[in-house]
Amino acid sequence: MENIAKQCQEEVFFSEQERDALYKTIFNRRDVRGQFKSDPIPDEVLSRVLHAAHHAPSVGFMQPWNFVIVRSKEVKKKVHKAFLQANEDAANMFDDERSKVYRSLKLEGILESPLNICITCDRSRTGPVVLGRTAVKSMDTYSSVCAVQNLWLAARAEGLGVGWVSIIKQEELQEALAIPKDIIPIAYLCVGYVSDFFKKPELESAGWLKRLPLEELVYLDQWQGTDNIERNSLVSKIAADAGIAQRY
Amino acid sequence: MENIAKQCQEEVFFSEQERDALYKTIFNRRDVRGQFKSDPIPDEVLSRVLHAAHHAPSVGFMQPWNFVIVRSKEVKKKVHKAFLQANEDAANMFDDERSKVYRSLKLEGILESPLNICITCDRSRTGPVVLGRTAVKSMDTYSSVCAVQNLWLAARAEGLGVGWVSIIKQEELQEALAIPKDIIPIAYLCVGYVSDFFKKPELESAGWLKRLPLEELVYLDQWQGTDNIERNSLVSKIAADAGIAQRY
Repeated sequence: MENIAKQCQEEVFFSEQERDALYKTIFNRRDVRGQFKSDPIPDEVLSRVLHAAHHAPSVGFMQPWNFVIVRSKEVKKKVHKAFLQANEDAANMFDDERSKVYRSLKLEGILESPLNICITCDRSRTGPVVLGRTAVKSMDTYSSVCAVQNLWLAARAEGLGVGWVSIIKQEELQEALAIPKDIIPIAYLCVGYVSDFFKKPELESAGWLKRLPLEELVYLDQWQGTDNIERNSLVSKIAADAGIAQRY
Repeated sequence: MENIAKQCQEEVFFSEQERDALYKTIFNRRDVRGQFKSDPIPDEVLSRVLHAAHHAPSVGFMQPWNFVIVRSKEVKKKVHKAFLQANEDAANMFDDERSKVYRSLKLEGILESPLNICITCDRSRTGPVVLGRTAVKSMDTYSSVCAVQNLWLAARAEGLGVGWVSIIKQEELQEALAIPKDIIPIAYLCVGYVSDFFKKPELESAGWLKRLPLEELVYLDQWQGTDNIERNSLVSKIAADAGIAQRY
């Protein structure tokens, strides 16, 4: 452990401006479906966002992810076809009124975005026993999700839009990209420069659902718990900050 | 859709400094176990990092998360006890040599950190059919993981360390925090100011595993795929950027 301690770095501090840049990225990140431009993404930009993804936390440092970059029109068309089928199945699961709204929403930009990225999880990387995955088996897939979120935020700061298309059966994605059966596709992302970013999440703007008041989602010490001075003080502060995203 | 278009915002651009601040956060984020200080976290800081978490992407905008903030010593002790048991089980899963190293690692800071946060996933929030969850059932848990990663990055930019403790059986966590059986605990986080942050991930510094070369994890158009000019150009760029994290 001494050896480790020696490797501790000089403190890296964040200025208020740097902290605010992080919040600006988080609050202005959007799930983009319809504003993609065809402009190519330079390799140097793509490299940076992939390195950001690769520096996500991973359980037991197993780094279970791969990144399949899809530029081929043929491959995209296969994935798009799989989306259309899964989307038709999905539309039929809602009641009549909701189904009508559902069908009016644009939910992917597979063909319009210049590139797609599939982020996967290789559960057997580093062997059968993984430090930190012993009690909760899904920790490895969660690691790949952290890579997705890092990539998404890096992309936003680079001016790139990202849309996560989840309405595709995993087997069809595996087939289209020749991904082995034991590798889990975690996210299929459409990536590209955009004409503009939405001010609010698209489903919020479209009236599909409202943003929940954060203060109602926060408990102290126990689920739901009981009101007390400490909790009241915290939730009052949270409620007072409700407009925080609009300030960035 | 016209109505939606009107709500599009004026372009929000990111300066190079802002983009670099995001990369600085991503590359300096650490999974903290041993450097917690007991200094309390002001409610205004806690509120900001929770709002950052609440602005994570969520499938169908369902926002399935709750945040149980744990400050009570009694509750922390229960969770710590559950960790000790799960950790003992885990240590026995490795072979002798690996088990010895495993036991030498500090894997949590439950009692030392001033607060713990449990982030959960309520799968039935917004009803049984969720837009975007129809083909991939685990999308809701992935949303809560995105909230974890947003919180983690926001905390880093605030100078707060975060450690994800995954070596606890979910049922014991549910019991300790009175979380209902149908709510999934996604992450149990230790949060606090720290004496210092590690330069590299702790498991990398301890020699548990090495960081994988990113260029070997990137494929073009198909899993593994074939070498071609396009792929070679991209992976060369990625390999040349291997030291990117050290520059921030």
